[in-house]
Amino acid sequence: MAVLCGPHVKGAQGISCGRHLANHDVQVILFLPNFVKMLESITTELALFSKTQGQQVSSLKGEPTAGQVRRVGGGGRQARLPLHQSSGLPTYLPTDLPGSPVDLVINCLDCPENAFLRDQPWYKAAVTWANQNRAPVLSIDPPARALDCGVDAKWSLALGLPLALGEHAGRVYLCDIGLPQQVFQEVGISYHSPFGCKFVIPLHPA
Amino acid sequence: MAVLCGPHVKGAQGISCGRHLANHDVQVILFLPNFVKMLESITTELALFSKTQGQQVSSLKGEPTAGQVRRVGGGGRQARLPLHQSSGLPTYLPTDLPGSPVDLVINCLDCPENAFLRDQPWYKAAVTWANQNRAPVLSIDPPARALDCGVDAKWSLALGLPLALGEHAGRVYLCDIGLPQQVFQEVGISYHSPFGCKFVIPLHPA
Repeated sequence: MAVLCGPHVKGAQGISCGRHLANHDVQVILFLPNFVKMLESITTELALFSKTQGQQVSSLKGEPTAGQVRRVGGGGRQARLPLHQSSGLPTYLPTDLPGSPVDLVINCLDCPENAFLRDQPWYKAAVTWANQNRAPVLSIDPPARALDCGVDAKWSLALGLPLALGEHAGRVYLCDIGLPQQVFQEVGISYHSPFGCKFVIPLHPA
Repeated sequence: MAVLCGPHVKGAQGISCGRHLANHDVQVILFLPNFVKMLESITTELALFSKTQGQQVSSLKGEPTAGQVRRVGGGGRQARLPLHQSSGLPTYLPTDLPGSPVDLVINCLDCPENAFLRDQPWYKAAVTWANQNRAPVLSIDPPARALDCGVDAKWSLALGLPLALGEHAGRVYLCDIGLPQQVFQEVGISYHSPFGCKFVIPLHPA
């Protein structure tokens, strides 16, 4: 299976998920884009993941399938962009990710606080790979998105409160992340916990 | 129910547990000793817990049942000790904890890195309270201990690898905390994961 992670807290949680699965004898391929400077939570989780049998890949290790590359600077980050694009989609794929279908993709590419990442080539390449692979996708906390710019999921896990997710999100489940009653009161939301004795509940029709 | 927490990472995890239970409409009483300076993980969890319906108590808010108190300094911490003790046990109990039995006690007083805390009066008082209350106790990561210096548990949850726990630990369960294979190799432990598809397994006879 593959875990697709962005360089943010949600990505760190995805790496942790990959480690636990690898410890339970699941063959895990972790995709994480190359950045010179990473969040501490990412480097901590990567150090742990590297001690499993899991494999880490990066789209930017592979060469573009067409066009040349140029470096773009800024913010201590390193990235490559294809010079020529024949469409809105990038002209290369993360060649280190397997070409044949995996059994499951867990999508941790998105983090609500880092929406700008969706414009980056590694993000678009990973989305393209996931949508071309025939594996079912579980998206963790996906954004409400416009058409044609994200991963099509079979299941999505929303955290705390659900966003207005469309059909691309598949079957939506809500996860209790432990927000106390008073937090909702303080932001003016009339809230009664829907969880009962459960910590994950389905939001889609049965 | 009551959650007994020491001023360490394990205690912070206990506070988090108390918050989740309180969010699910369990009446939670959290015991945490008074310290002037707390770990960041403790203050973060306390801030979240304070927004639930749960109640926080401290043994040191209550007055000793016998003897006077004096302040002891050191390490930025504030503590009170009874002047006179009639035995090895302190002469006061955490009076803010309920006198009648609760339904469940979760014991997070211990942390392997902070064994010296077991000599402190708040620790002994909390242990005495738990052993006098007739509630079943779930101990999280209890230490291997000598007789008569800890909480008698009905169940204990060991983390990663079990210690040589005695009868006081009750029925012992082992929790998978995600240590990768290579970590065991590096410290010379021949390890094959006993977890299979589970994350908690019983170590006691069925």
